[in-house]
Amino acid sequence: MPNAIESLKAHAAEIGHLRNAMAVLDWDVQVNMPPGGAQARADQLGCLARLSHTQFTSDKTRALLEAAEEEAKGFSLDSDEARLAGNVRHDFDKAIKLPAELAGEISSHATVTEGVWKRARADNDFTAFAPSLKKSFDLTRQVAECLGYEDDLYDPLLDNFEPGMKTAAVEKIFSELKPHLIELTRAISAKDANKDRSLPAGPFPAAVQNEVTLRIVQAIGYDVSRGRQDQAAHPFCTSFSRDDVRITTRFDEKSLEMALYASLHEAGHALYEQGIPAEYDNSPLGGAASMGFHESQSRMWENMVGRSLPFISFVLPKLKKAFPVLSGYSANRFHRAVNRVEPSFIRVEADEVTYNLHIMLRFEMERELLSGRLAVTDAPEAWNARMKEYLGVTPPDHSSGILQDVHWAGVLIGYFPTYALGNLLSAQLWSTVRKSVPDVEKLFECGEFEPLLDWLRENVHHQARRLKPGELIKRAMGEDLSPKYYVDYLKTKYGELYDLKP
Amino acid sequence: MPNAIESLKAHAAEIGHLRNAMAVLDWDVQVNMPPGGAQARADQLGCLARLSHTQFTSDKTRALLEAAEEEAKGFSLDSDEARLAGNVRHDFDKAIKLPAELAGEISSHATVTEGVWKRARADNDFTAFAPSLKKSFDLTRQVAECLGYEDDLYDPLLDNFEPGMKTAAVEKIFSELKPHLIELTRAISAKDANKDRSLPAGPFPAAVQNEVTLRIVQAIGYDVSRGRQDQAAHPFCTSFSRDDVRITTRFDEKSLEMALYASLHEAGHALYEQGIPAEYDNSPLGGAASMGFHESQSRMWENMVGRSLPFISFVLPKLKKAFPVLSGYSANRFHRAVNRVEPSFIRVEADEVTYNLHIMLRFEMERELLSGRLAVTDAPEAWNARMKEYLGVTPPDHSSGILQDVHWAGVLIGYFPTYALGNLLSAQLWSTVRKSVPDVEKLFECGEFEPLLDWLRENVHHQARRLKPGELIKRAMGEDLSPKYYVDYLKTKYGELYDLKP
Repeated sequence: MPNAIESLKAHAAEIGHLRNAMAVLDWDVQVNMPPGGAQARADQLGCLARLSHTQFTSDKTRALLEAAEEEAKGFSLDSDEARLAGNVRHDFDKAIKLPAELAGEISSHATVTEGVWKRARADNDFTAFAPSLKKSFDLTRQVAECLGYEDDLYDPLLDNFEPGMKTAAVEKIFSELKPHLIELTRAISAKDANKDRSLPAGPFPAAVQNEVTLRIVQAIGYDVSRGRQDQAAHPFCTSFSRDDVRITTRFDEKSLEMALYASLHEAGHALYEQGIPAEYDNSPLGGAASMGFHESQSRMWENMVGRSLPFISFVLPKLKKAFPVLSGYSANRFHRAVNRVEPSFIRVEADEVTYNLHIMLRFEMERELLSGRLAVTDAPEAWNARMKEYLGVTPPDHSSGILQDVHWAGVLIGYFPTYALGNLLSAQLWSTVRKSVPDVEKLFECGEFEPLLDWLRENVHHQARRLKPGELIKRAMGEDLSPKYYVDYLKTKYGELYDLKP
Repeated sequence: MPNAIESLKAHAAEIGHLRNAMAVLDWDVQVNMPPGGAQARADQLGCLARLSHTQFTSDKTRALLEAAEEEAKGFSLDSDEARLAGNVRHDFDKAIKLPAELAGEISSHATVTEGVWKRARADNDFTAFAPSLKKSFDLTRQVAECLGYEDDLYDPLLDNFEPGMKTAAVEKIFSELKPHLIELTRAISAKDANKDRSLPAGPFPAAVQNEVTLRIVQAIGYDVSRGRQDQAAHPFCTSFSRDDVRITTRFDEKSLEMALYASLHEAGHALYEQGIPAEYDNSPLGGAASMGFHESQSRMWENMVGRSLPFISFVLPKLKKAFPVLSGYSANRFHRAVNRVEPSFIRVEADEVTYNLHIMLRFEMERELLSGRLAVTDAPEAWNARMKEYLGVTPPDHSSGILQDVHWAGVLIGYFPTYALGNLLSAQLWSTVRKSVPDVEKLFECGEFEPLLDWLRENVHHQARRLKPGELIKRAMGEDLSPKYYVDYLKTKYGELYDLKP
């Protein structure tokens, strides 16, 4: 790369090192840190956050960026040179618009509020959480105003996680999708056919689960010489470089599904990060295209692969060897159990059919709370009304309702839609892969996941963050994001599983 | 604290956060990091090292320090205010004398050389290591010249780890100690009485060892709500704050001694760090007085406590329950086994009698290599000659000889003497404790370690880094460091154990 762009890249790499160091410290918090370490760790992370923010929003960055943009004019718009400068411009313009005091206030508020939220959830006490929730939305409103928008106050928030995506576009997609999901949920609920759709309640010793899930994620392609699996209360994947990408899972000795699908989900994220080209690693071209793209990969490996009959035929003998309690289970029976559909209160436990309805509820409520159309005090009622309308169930308490997610306590507003976009994208990618790779699903039976991984590497992972998500979708699949693939996927799969009339 | 000193303290705390973040990243390298993560981790650590060095040697530090020194004139020399400014002055003057390029060269050399050393040790090939070793000493000579000295080129290096200690003083102490150690080693070797001094060769399952050693270090006072124990190839203790102090140990399923005494040793370090007063934590008054003081604490708990008969009487029933293979062992027999004396080649495996001879050899060779009186090519011969003279044995190869330690590869020169000073100090402190705390040793039998820990807390830990090590010794014990306590301790203990004539 030419001089000025190279200098910008080197400067960005230094800031990247700081962010990666923060990721290590965060991972340690969730995996290892003794309780006493919390205060010092918050101080260490705060110090690194201030430093990386100061360095990134500095006059040095501005000067390097302007020189790089000048130089990039000599390259095509699709060149790495132009893309690199473009990405830094996108991030820099957003970063400098956010006053350091507001960023600091949000960070402090999030730290304190997560504690408030935990207690409120444990006590089932929405009133105790309400003032913090109000402040989360007040602060987010300020953020949106600072970042600026043309059409919708929610746009700049969404753009933080899904660059280039518009609120109106999400609205359109969701409104197309919603009636299908509600209809399918009702049709399945009406059948009351879940009696024989379950796995035994253990024993599944945690140590054996760890060993088995680790072997399974290695089988699909996760490289443990560049990663590791640990245990955490809330499973996640994190990356300190493409060569150190770690996953976490959790064990319930009475349920194999929890660890198996958490490991597969996080390994899906990890395969993406491990597949980022070395030359993009820790650079403005590295990382994922968006959170939606990240989720498309985790959901692909969790659902399209992990909940498919061929995959189950492949892993079941291994699972039976590790857990004799499974001995009476056929692949078909296992397949029926792990694809059980049931309207429930908790998003993270929701099945493929109902999951996106949980997201729509949150998307709609975030917009209403942000604009002020809905008052925080009225939020629990609004939550429960939507649960009844979309899923046909009413949470028995606030802990299973509006208090269930950490996002609003953590001032992470604008993030929820990316879960649903990731689901849609996973189905659209899957439809494309099935057309391009003959027998891709059948190959899972023999433990052959490379043809799928190769396709994802070439069409998604190797693009890293070169393209905006919208461009990447079009380039990988020849058309825009559409909900119809997910609808088709669900109707075919669950039509068969629940014997529904077409 | 008054304004200027408070500002200096706040500035130092920010730099402290960076150093603590580095400690977390280092811990992760040794405990968790997958092999692929090495390059990115080196980059992250390099970035943090540059930042903390730049911030510490900045004009801002100088200005804050000068203002604080001015303000400290209003306080007594022994006040926290004066001590704080004094410590920053000591560190600042050293840091600014070291050119950034030299520090960078040393860091790169150490990173590369550790790899060279590992291969050379594995291949038993001194020639492959010699050029790197020469460079380690060349670079260290430059460091010593930059730091400056009055009496001895080795002084400023020693001062890095043992502030205020002079090479001549170490020389004097060692020359008093050496003949006693050689004589005692010879007397014991002549007895050839080690046949019944051993523990069974397992089985000691690693998971059980982990559980048992963790319970034992908790019994002596290690607080796991502010720490944790993990496994590492080379056991160590590290601290990210007084409330997050972690130890590591290692397991040999054929030998219980390795994990038991590694855990006790590292817990001894950890008790020190956990005992630093909260108001000194992450400040120029926090941390240990010196590396020698640190080692005095680890050796106290490893040897004076862990290898004592009352302690063994306390833990043996627990060990027998965990490891039935120990059932035939009495406390006396166990005591004899873990206090076996045998001249050996490897420092880290050496017993209390011979250990310091290994250190003297290294101290003498470091000084000769540094001054150029000894050429690197002649070093292996010099090593082996001293081994023969001091310990009566000759290493069979360089891997068990001059290639055994990582320190010279890591450009850690001037550090070795602190191990011996720590041993001496542990005996001198122990002698003082026994006079001040009635029955202190006998109480171990009932698992009562608080009286000892309380004394150490009050007289050592709570002083943190307020005093120079020499002052702290005098204040805690009323006299200067002297080798006679260690000699008395050895003569009494091993005279009995080996039935030597007085």
